[in-house]
Amino acid sequence: MARNSIGKNLTITSFGESHGAAVGVVVDGYPANIEIDMEALQLCMQRRRPGQSEITTSRNESDVVEIISGVFEGKTLGSPITMIIRNNDAKSIDYDNLKNIYRPGHADLLYDVKYGHRDHRGGGRSSARITAGWVAAGALAIQYLEKRGIKITGWVNQIYNIVAPKLEITPNRIEIENSMVRCWDEQTSSEMIAAIELAKSENDSLGGVIQCHIEGMPKGIGEPVFGKLQAILGLYLLNINAVKGISFGDGFEAAGMKGSAHNDEWHSDNDGVGTRTNHSGGIIGGMSTGEVIKIQVAFKPTSTIGKEQNTVNHLEENVTIAATGRHDPCVLPRAVPIVEAMCALALMDLIMENP
Amino acid sequence: MARNSIGKNLTITSFGESHGAAVGVVVDGYPANIEIDMEALQLCMQRRRPGQSEITTSRNESDVVEIISGVFEGKTLGSPITMIIRNNDAKSIDYDNLKNIYRPGHADLLYDVKYGHRDHRGGGRSSARITAGWVAAGALAIQYLEKRGIKITGWVNQIYNIVAPKLEITPNRIEIENSMVRCWDEQTSSEMIAAIELAKSENDSLGGVIQCHIEGMPKGIGEPVFGKLQAILGLYLLNINAVKGISFGDGFEAAGMKGSAHNDEWHSDNDGVGTRTNHSGGIIGGMSTGEVIKIQVAFKPTSTIGKEQNTVNHLEENVTIAATGRHDPCVLPRAVPIVEAMCALALMDLIMENP
Amino acid sequence: MARNSIGKNLTITSFGESHGAAVGVVVDGYPANIEIDMEALQLCMQRRRPGQSEITTSRNESDVVEIISGVFEGKTLGSPITMIIRNNDAKSIDYDNLKNIYRPGHADLLYDVKYGHRDHRGGGRSSARITAGWVAAGALAIQYLEKRGIKITGWVNQIYNIVAPKLEITPNRIEIENSMVRCWDEQTSSEMIAAIELAKSENDSLGGVIQCHIEGMPKGIGEPVFGKLQAILGLYLLNINAVKGISFGDGFEAAGMKGSAHNDEWHSDNDGVGTRTNHSGGIIGGMSTGEVIKIQVAFKPTSTIGKEQNTVNHLEENVTIAATGRHDPCVLPRAVPIVEAMCALALMDLIMENP
Amino acid sequence: MARNSIGKNLTITSFGESHGAAVGVVVDGYPANIEIDMEALQLCMQRRRPGQSEITTSRNESDVVEIISGVFEGKTLGSPITMIIRNNDAKSIDYDNLKNIYRPGHADLLYDVKYGHRDHRGGGRSSARITAGWVAAGALAIQYLEKRGIKITGWVNQIYNIVAPKLEITPNRIEIENSMVRCWDEQTSSEMIAAIELAKSENDSLGGVIQCHIEGMPKGIGEPVFGKLQAILGLYLLNINAVKGISFGDGFEAAGMKGSAHNDEWHSDNDGVGTRTNHSGGIIGGMSTGEVIKIQVAFKPTSTIGKEQNTVNHLEENVTIAATGRHDPCVLPRAVPIVEAMCALALMDLIMENP
Repeated sequence: MARNSIGKNLTITSFGESHGAAVGVVVDGYPANIEIDMEALQLCMQRRRPGQSEITTSRNESDVVEIISGVFEGKTLGSPITMIIRNNDAKSIDYDNLKNIYRPGHADLLYDVKYGHRDHRGGGRSSARITAGWVAAGALAIQYLEKRGIKITGWVNQIYNIVAPKLEITPNRIEIENSMVRCWDEQTSSEMIAAIELAKSENDSLGGVIQCHIEGMPKGIGEPVFGKLQAILGLYLLNINAVKGISFGDGFEAAGMKGSAHNDEWHSDNDGVGTRTNHSGGIIGGMSTGEVIKIQVAFKPTSTIGKEQNTVNHLEENVTIAATGRHDPCVLPRAVPIVEAMCALALMDLIMENP
Repeated sequence: MARNSIGKNLTITSFGESHGAAVGVVVDGYPANIEIDMEALQLCMQRRRPGQSEITTSRNESDVVEIISGVFEGKTLGSPITMIIRNNDAKSIDYDNLKNIYRPGHADLLYDVKYGHRDHRGGGRSSARITAGWVAAGALAIQYLEKRGIKITGWVNQIYNIVAPKLEITPNRIEIENSMVRCWDEQTSSEMIAAIELAKSENDSLGGVIQCHIEGMPKGIGEPVFGKLQAILGLYLLNINAVKGISFGDGFEAAGMKGSAHNDEWHSDNDGVGTRTNHSGGIIGGMSTGEVIKIQVAFKPTSTIGKEQNTVNHLEENVTIAATGRHDPCVLPRAVPIVEAMCALALMDLIMENP
Repeated sequence: MARNSIGKNLTITSFGESHGAAVGVVVDGYPANIEIDMEALQLCMQRRRPGQSEITTSRNESDVVEIISGVFEGKTLGSPITMIIRNNDAKSIDYDNLKNIYRPGHADLLYDVKYGHRDHRGGGRSSARITAGWVAAGALAIQYLEKRGIKITGWVNQIYNIVAPKLEITPNRIEIENSMVRCWDEQTSSEMIAAIELAKSENDSLGGVIQCHIEGMPKGIGEPVFGKLQAILGLYLLNINAVKGISFGDGFEAAGMKGSAHNDEWHSDNDGVGTRTNHSGGIIGGMSTGEVIKIQVAFKPTSTIGKEQNTVNHLEENVTIAATGRHDPCVLPRAVPIVEAMCALALMDLIMENP
Repeated sequence: MARNSIGKNLTITSFGESHGAAVGVVVDGYPANIEIDMEALQLCMQRRRPGQSEITTSRNESDVVEIISGVFEGKTLGSPITMIIRNNDAKSIDYDNLKNIYRPGHADLLYDVKYGHRDHRGGGRSSARITAGWVAAGALAIQYLEKRGIKITGWVNQIYNIVAPKLEITPNRIEIENSMVRCWDEQTSSEMIAAIELAKSENDSLGGVIQCHIEGMPKGIGEPVFGKLQAILGLYLLNINAVKGISFGDGFEAAGMKGSAHNDEWHSDNDGVGTRTNHSGGIIGGMSTGEVIKIQVAFKPTSTIGKEQNTVNHLEENVTIAATGRHDPCVLPRAVPIVEAMCALALMDLIMENP
């Protein structure tokens, strides 16, 4: 299993298993002499952590980040920043019955095929728990981008069949955070919560869509051939557990359009040159146009459910399996900071290419 | 402009401008002692080349590949394979009026902002012409994968508002190639051709969706953290010009599903262990499940159109622009081999990780 | 400060400062399902650790390695192996006087120029202490190579003006380890120890040369163009603190030879094909020949000395400086396991290229 | 055979075989909008090309560089610069007798073991001819560095047992180029030429040492852990064919010194802060000190000789072999521009890390 690092200029190396001692990340390439806002970092962690509300998993982790290198007297040294998040509430015993039985929708079986040895507890290396490290790294990238006037705002736009009203502007972060499901629209939030509660009571889970806007982008970020802005964002976002699709601007709807309708005409006025429409979602030819970058990320429903399912065991026998672990009936609200973190890491990596 | 190489184990380096001497590619890491089927390679080129039918651009290139290194006596040496495709029918004079005026939907303006110097002829480095090199490289990857029993089949599933019937199986390559628009369904093909002809007569262009199936995959291809199969496929596919979205399996529809409906239950029978449904599109936990990999790729309509549009020039003045060059009213049919090539290159890169 | 990772197939990421919480390493790409010999690993650490004999630095660290990811039930998971070595005997107060004064031969001044913020305690990120992590990673690579019959033996061949007798064969590991200076020859060892003790009493330090033999190599390891075996070994070895030169086989003496004398003629007998002489040091055309690989590594004397020296401070004033920290009068004996570790990491990275 | 690319920020990809259509290079990451001095580039080629004087090989190549991408109207586009050098005087027939017999000192046998298929003509991919592309790429890097005031000067300091007088300053380029062997000292040059002529008449070859000075370096170039200036220079230089050793500053002599003698004391005066001695060769802690960088590179004698030698054939039979191809009795004079090119490429790659 290689490829636990990502990024050319800002390289993050992820490590850790769900029920091992800790998960964490090493951030290499972060500039020196920058003051770290630990409170802001911990707030990002808080938004991702399990147990933050009654509609998430019952696993309860404080997810306090320990920095063990790269920061001295509150400021970055330029050297690798290592951050560790301890696994405290890891009930490994819950997984004893899953040692030899492969959960549907999970990679357990594939691990055994590929590696011959597996930490079966809570998904091991494939647990969404490892995104805790990514969010910590992303929090540093967000601080870097904010100093350059770049702001990333993610929200839950769809859960199951409940979709928020269409929105042209970027919703307010406070409204988003006021909602237990991180949807800016109060009415939609209520319906989403009800749907999650119902799914929970049915021992089932729900998918959804996160939208993300990036404001304050300069023109020209992204490399026109194999470093296209959408491709690098895609690389980071498609590595998030459970993501099954990603699109930019009008996305799949653009497929049904004519060029004369989709092309965003350039326009010059006192604010400089920009486009009045933004069908392209702020990216043309692999580079940022200076307009808002608009991203949609589709999540499948959580594979871990409480219903009985058919599956096979390590002897390749057909068996049934009941509950497959403590789980979130819907990870979307907790996934918002993960999407934001991955966007920030991708962007910072590209911005450092031409600083 | 860095990042003209892609791939860790099989690295391809793309070079060339639309109206320069040539475009091409260097393929590094391809195994030694493999016989190259030049006819099959040239057939891939043929499927991508402009001027192949009356509904594409009028630029006419034979796109014959010259191999100038890495192959000796018909077999690979293991050393870098350099392939060059000459630009013969490059009418640079057509673009003289575009030297100082920025085409909407194109990166011209962003190039000037970022690089300060630009080959304005036919999109320069951002022309889809550079994908000729990718298709040549992909053809080698396809040959490698076919020897391992892996087969990639792409087709046009949607053009504008015309969508092919839903299909569970993989359509036949012959039926696809019999259609001028590379859609397996005859009736849909006729409607698509009519739509393209109408768009052409209106000096407009159309978007669409390409679907791609990968059959014969072994289990366990892909690296579970930052080398997830969908993420590496996404990286390659999102670097194709005009792509605005990508999804796997049920894709964005998975967002509206329950876990109990989406989970593909494992099942064991005489053929071994597999899943009976395939909502996940053949990928779980970032690794191949052994089932068919199912990919959807959304293309925006071609930015180059013949209609008058508003835009700005290099003095930041608002101007209008008429025709923006010879163009395809719909690139989807020619993009099928590009999608297949990028899938093949991504897959081969990952397969070589654990050979 | 980027580039804290090294290796394409087996990637190690180094982190930590001399007087921070810990130093450590993440090893990515190590194969799954391999039993780790913790005792052997700890023995490597023991051979590098400060305070192991009376002729080294007085800093005393037990250097016990904590593995916090990637190993489960004693066997590797294939996932990143994170190893941490705590800094226990870090007397930061010793360095208070060095906060604003730049030690000759050290990078302190360059850090302030380049990064604007520096952990001045004990050399921070440039301390040889960070090689503790490299040795831990190298210990895993050594275990991997030994299973393939490859054995790496390093020894101190020169300290100051004392040079061990010329040797054609590979000396015995036990004899080397029996010597406090890690030289196989008893008489030379005594002289070396005396020289070190004298230098210590003079508050001075000594340079030297480590030789390293790699036995059991198969033919063909190394990539013939930019992955030449000597170049990849060189990359790893020249990154060891204080190394100022490296050579292979006859090395700089080869410069004074004729081709007819230097060429190692191929010869075939019952043992297969090999060479009878080994002027090339087991590497031709960037690939291993199957003969013993012979490496020489030159170390400058430790920069940290106890003598008064002239230098400048952070105000660019000329000043004098007395003792510059606890130090080894000669690091060569402790550097043997570092050289071996770096050789092992380089080799394993190349071997994994064509497994 | 992977690893035909080198460089993180300025990536060069080498391709081509000695007796194929051409050798060449793709340079990715070179900044846009820079005027290329083709005359200066061609002069670098001229200094490397075979047949430039009566003491080199009789292969005669004009080595005119064709640029087929990345340069438009004389200025760089930022896109990959592809340069091709045709193989014109490739007498493949000379090598017919070497198809099944392995030349001592050459990699022929190892290629057959490793790749199973080989271009036996003139060393194929392992020919020093492929350095033509490196020199072309290096010429671009040299132009970039010169604009920043950095100047690289290489010369032949030793051929066989003839060594130039010790020199503290950097010799004059004109004096070096006036010498057929590229040694600044006239008397030494005469002796070197005589030695080469003797070796030629004996069908033998000679090794030697090239020295290289880099002047005008700013402080702080190089990354302190795995991107140490000496290690990156070493990586590039040790990839040059026939190089068996490399050292910096006092190099292997530093091994015999005391710290009090080797440490270069910092000193401040009207010119700023620097060191008065330069034992370290301009590099401390992996970063440039601002002083002259001093490098020694040891070359083994050319493996291709005209004497009869013992060896084996592809059937593993012991045989004798007579002349092994047209050859340079001493490549050192022609290798000077290669050493300079590799230094330039390494330096530019590191400088672009923190621009």
